[in-house]
Amino acid sequence: MNKIVIFGVGLIGGSFARALKQVGAVGTVVGMGRSPQSMARALELGIIDEIGSDPAQALDGADLVLLAAPVAQTGAILASIAPHLQPGTIVTDAGSTKSDVVAAARAALGDKVAQFVPGHPIAGRETNGPDAAIVDLYRGKKVVLTPLVENAAADVAKVAGAWRACGAILHTLTAEEHDKVFAAVSHLPHLLAFALVDDIANKPHAPLLFQYAASGFRDFTRIAGSSPEMWRDISLANQPALLHELDAYLAQLTSLRAHLATLDGAAIETVYASAQHARQQWIEAIEAAELPASASPTE
Amino acid sequence: MNKIVIFGVGLIGGSFARALKQVGAVGTVVGMGRSPQSMARALELGIIDEIGSDPAQALDGADLVLLAAPVAQTGAILASIAPHLQPGTIVTDAGSTKSDVVAAARAALGDKVAQFVPGHPIAGRETNGPDAAIVDLYRGKKVVLTPLVENAAADVAKVAGAWRACGAILHTLTAEEHDKVFAAVSHLPHLLAFALVDDIANKPHAPLLFQYAASGFRDFTRIAGSSPEMWRDISLANQPALLHELDAYLAQLTSLRAHLATLDGAAIETVYASAQHARQQWIEAIEAAELPASASPTE
Repeated sequence: MNKIVIFGVGLIGGSFARALKQVGAVGTVVGMGRSPQSMARALELGIIDEIGSDPAQALDGADLVLLAAPVAQTGAILASIAPHLQPGTIVTDAGSTKSDVVAAARAALGDKVAQFVPGHPIAGRETNGPDAAIVDLYRGKKVVLTPLVENAAADVAKVAGAWRACGAILHTLTAEEHDKVFAAVSHLPHLLAFALVDDIANKPHAPLLFQYAASGFRDFTRIAGSSPEMWRDISLANQPALLHELDAYLAQLTSLRAHLATLDGAAIETVYASAQHARQQWIEAIEAAELPASASPTE
Repeated sequence: MNKIVIFGVGLIGGSFARALKQVGAVGTVVGMGRSPQSMARALELGIIDEIGSDPAQALDGADLVLLAAPVAQTGAILASIAPHLQPGTIVTDAGSTKSDVVAAARAALGDKVAQFVPGHPIAGRETNGPDAAIVDLYRGKKVVLTPLVENAAADVAKVAGAWRACGAILHTLTAEEHDKVFAAVSHLPHLLAFALVDDIANKPHAPLLFQYAASGFRDFTRIAGSSPEMWRDISLANQPALLHELDAYLAQLTSLRAHLATLDGAAIETVYASAQHARQQWIEAIEAAELPASASPTE
C-alpha cells in the first residue's frame, strides 16, 4: 500500500502502523487525531510520516483508512471523511462492538458503505497512547472481520492482508455473531468484575475486606482496572446482546442461590465441576493451539 | 516444640512441616492421613519423621496438632483425637471457614475445646499433595487466627509463634468476622467464576464462545479451575455469610441491569469508575505494604 491514514495513533492504531512499516507493507502513514501532543509524539517516534491537516488532504490517494479512535467518535469521523472518500480507498475500524459501528457507517457513508469493512483486533495492553504502540502487538492474535453484504471480496481480502502482514490470525463473523460472542466472553465479565469491586467498596467494612483480598481476587478483578469510560461506551453500544447475557447469568445465579439456600451440595458440585472441566478443556485447547507457533523455527 | 502431629501432609500440612524443620522449630513431625501412599511419600521426602499408627500413640507427648486434611473430615478427626488429648497439647487447623470448624470442635472436644485454637493460612498453589509442599509457602503470607473465649492467651501465642516461625504475618478476627470477610473476597468470587464458566459451557454455541475468550476471561475465571469438591464444601460450610454476600451482589447486578436497560450511561460509568478507583487504591496499598519486605536486607 502506498498510503494509509490512521485516525487515533495510540496503542491500537500506532501498533498497526509500526507492524506494517516493519514488514515494508506501507509507504506513507498519515496520522489524524484530536490531540496535537499525541500526533507530534507519534511523528517523533516514527509511527507516522505525516500529521494530516484535514480529511480531504489526508484521504487523497489513500489505499486504506483505519479508525482506531475511541468508538464514540466513529460516527463523527466517518461523516467527516464521507465526502472525500475516493473509489479506490477502503475504510476499516478497530472497535470492540460491531453492530453499532455498522449502523453508524451506513448512516454516515450512505452509498459508499461498500467501502467500509468492519474489524476488531483482539489485542491490548495495560498502557495506552503512542508510546505504548509496539511492533508485535498483533502477532499471533485474532482479528475478527465482520464484512457487509455490500463489501467486494477483494476489499475484504485487502483489509485481511493488512492484518496478516501484522502477524494476526484472521477470523470472520457477522456483526451480530461478533457482538453476541463478545458480550458473553468479554463484556459481561467486565460488567461482573466492576460490579463486584463497587459492591465491596461501598460496604461499611470495605477496608477490612480489601485487607484480606488475595491473589484469586486480584485476578478475578483485573479487568475492573480497565477504563470506565471505554467500558461504559462498549456496554451501551452492545446493550441488546449484553442484556441478554446478563439475564442468562442472573438466572444461573438465582438457580445456584436456590441450591445454596437448600444446602444441595450435589447440585452445587455439578455446576462447579462442569465449570472446572470446561475451563480445563479450554486451557488445554489454547495450549495445543499455541504449540505449533512456539515450536516453529521461523519464530 | 519437641513433637507435632499433622493430619494431612499435602500442600498445606507438608509446607508447615517443611518450614518448621527449616528453622529448627520442631523435633519430631508425625504424619497422619488416610492415604498410605501420601504418607509414604511424605516420609520419603523428609516432610515427616514418622507415620502415626493410631491417635493415642501419635498424640502422646505432642506439643501441637495441625489439622490440614479436607475440612469435611474435621469433625471426625477431632472426635478421634479427643480421648487422647493430653493437657499440654494444643490443636489448631487450616480450614478456609471457621464458624463451622468451631462448632465441630465444641461438639467433638467438649471440655477440652479450650485446647483448640482455630486458624486459616491465606496461602495456596495450583498443585497439591506432599510433592507440592514447599518451605516458603507461608513466607510473607497472612495467617488468621480466630481464638475462642476459652483459649488461654499462652496457647494462642504458641500457635501464632509456630506460624511466625514459618514466616507468616499473624492476624486475629472472630470466627464470624472471618467468615463474613472471606465470603465477600474469596467464596463469592469463586461461586461467580464457576457460575459464569458453567453458564457459557451450557450454551449451544459454547465452542464458538470459548474460541474467542481471551486473557481477560482467562484471569477472571482462573479460580474456576479450583477443586469443585473443596469449593462445594466451603460454600456449604459458610452458607449463611455466602448467601448474604450473594444477595447483595444480586441486588447490585439488578440495579446495574436497570441502568443498562434504560441506557443510563452516567449511572453505569459511576459504578465502573468507583470500581476502577477502589481497585487502583487497593493495588497501590498492596504494593506499598510489600515494599518494606522486598527492600529488607534480611530477605
